[in-house]
Amino acid sequence: MLDLCLLGTGGMMPLPNRWLTSLMTRYNGSNLLIDCGEGTQITLKQKGWSFKSIDIICFTHFHGDHTSGLPGLLLTMGNSDRTEPLKIIGPKGVIRVVNGLRVIAPELPFEIEFIELEDDFNRIDYKGYQIEAYKLNHKVTCYGYNIIINRTGKFDMDKAKAADIPIKYWSVLQKGDQVFHEERLLTPDMVLGEERKGIKVSYCTDTRPIDNIVIHAKEADLFICEGMYGDPDEDNKAKEYKHMTFWEAAELAKAAHVKTMWLTHFSPALVKPKDFEYVAQKIFPNSFVAKDRQTITLKFED
Amino acid sequence: MLDLCLLGTGGMMPLPNRWLTSLMTRYNGSNLLIDCGEGTQITLKQKGWSFKSIDIICFTHFHGDHTSGLPGLLLTMGNSDRTEPLKIIGPKGVIRVVNGLRVIAPELPFEIEFIELEDDFNRIDYKGYQIEAYKLNHKVTCYGYNIIINRTGKFDMDKAKAADIPIKYWSVLQKGDQVFHEERLLTPDMVLGEERKGIKVSYCTDTRPIDNIVIHAKEADLFICEGMYGDPDEDNKAKEYKHMTFWEAAELAKAAHVKTMWLTHFSPALVKPKDFEYVAQKIFPNSFVAKDRQTITLKFED
Repeated sequence: MLDLCLLGTGGMMPLPNRWLTSLMTRYNGSNLLIDCGEGTQITLKQKGWSFKSIDIICFTHFHGDHTSGLPGLLLTMGNSDRTEPLKIIGPKGVIRVVNGLRVIAPELPFEIEFIELEDDFNRIDYKGYQIEAYKLNHKVTCYGYNIIINRTGKFDMDKAKAADIPIKYWSVLQKGDQVFHEERLLTPDMVLGEERKGIKVSYCTDTRPIDNIVIHAKEADLFICEGMYGDPDEDNKAKEYKHMTFWEAAELAKAAHVKTMWLTHFSPALVKPKDFEYVAQKIFPNSFVAKDRQTITLKFED
Repeated sequence: MLDLCLLGTGGMMPLPNRWLTSLMTRYNGSNLLIDCGEGTQITLKQKGWSFKSIDIICFTHFHGDHTSGLPGLLLTMGNSDRTEPLKIIGPKGVIRVVNGLRVIAPELPFEIEFIELEDDFNRIDYKGYQIEAYKLNHKVTCYGYNIIINRTGKFDMDKAKAADIPIKYWSVLQKGDQVFHEERLLTPDMVLGEERKGIKVSYCTDTRPIDNIVIHAKEADLFICEGMYGDPDEDNKAKEYKHMTFWEAAELAKAAHVKTMWLTHFSPALVKPKDFEYVAQKIFPNSFVAKDRQTITLKFED
């Protein structure tokens, strides 16, 4: 079970009624944040989810509308008595950028551990999340992220018996731990059936539409995708500023066979994005113009 | 005539219903901002005053709640097609801090000119503002600011005639310019009477109460002063964190003989600061708990 809240839906600058685009997920007591623009901590406070439980912050890229809220958030996390290390993931340069911003947040009660993404595709397993970062095509280096919760197979008693596993270790192995017993390593796969379908969320902003998105967002339960421009007249702007239109996002969603798409990262000039939702739905019916703090709980299929 | 808007009234962190403390003034087409926490650009947008006309930003000190909105504001000013240089004034270190924050706003279409304050008292004349910075007593180096609009004397025809000033120069001199005429320097004081009372605003946060505030806020038309704590039980916190209570601020206002005091920079724990307004008013009746975007136009007396 993965809780997910799109904390804001704006691009470029925060507006009185629209926070900048960022995503928070909650899984197994651990919160993950993607991007942190100016005001992200305020919409998070409105949502009421924990600052203290933020274990991971992923940055898509370093433009101000995706990063300017970081020092304030770090200070507020510090005030929440957090002491566990925080993991920050981002494109090459993330250490330099975060340390630059920390000129006004130099003293924190927790350590920051960095992962600088260097490859076009990166996978990180942390706190139960499988995080995949895939290269996008923006004016600066930018990554999309998959947040995946894998699901092990069901407990298989016949398999456990056949492998001669003592009953006292069944639940330990079922939970995913390994055990040494009589000079033999017992592993979870010895008691579990086939791996089952997990949960996959793909988050994709800022970028032009490229095949790499279709490849990596493939069959996501939820595809959160930028749609900077909704008005069919604004095709040129999307190309000029290396963003996407609603219909370009919808084409990606359709090609990637995702279940649902939420559009986000609206231009400040796009006052009523809902008015253009139909543009995306004509191409991919399960397209929705997201609202600030739109929330969903994704569950394992059964 | 000086327009003034207290853009926010919070301290420590921005809240859903309370922006961080910062002040904007407008005078003669030029805007001046004191402090810029996370969200200042949003409350400014709500107010509807110009981003493009911001010629001066003064920082009291470098704590995050007074500075974290700067990179976002600079980017938005850049998007407003501003090209004139921006003056940034702050304690020693302001160049280092602003350049640190500019890691996410490296390219701007205007230059930034810095003034680093080094003395306990500093005076800067710029764009018609007389800006005075006076040392406060906080955990880090911190300054209060006076924003003064001076007012010249009335035109004095008898004086002009006595000084043998040709009539064609009267209006030029009256406007404050100097003229060379027949090897003689003609100056405004030759045609003007005694200087008249101008407008004085004193802005004072974050600090313990000290005599230096009484000295420099003296006879201000408006004294904007921090009152982090209103509840009479929170005396110790004010001392521990080097802030002020409502009654300490009121004692300063009374001793400085200011006309009016606005309290601001409330602790996030102080949910209803208005409930404690009476505490300040018992000491200085013209004390008021300010609201976000509280606005006033101060005029010359006559």
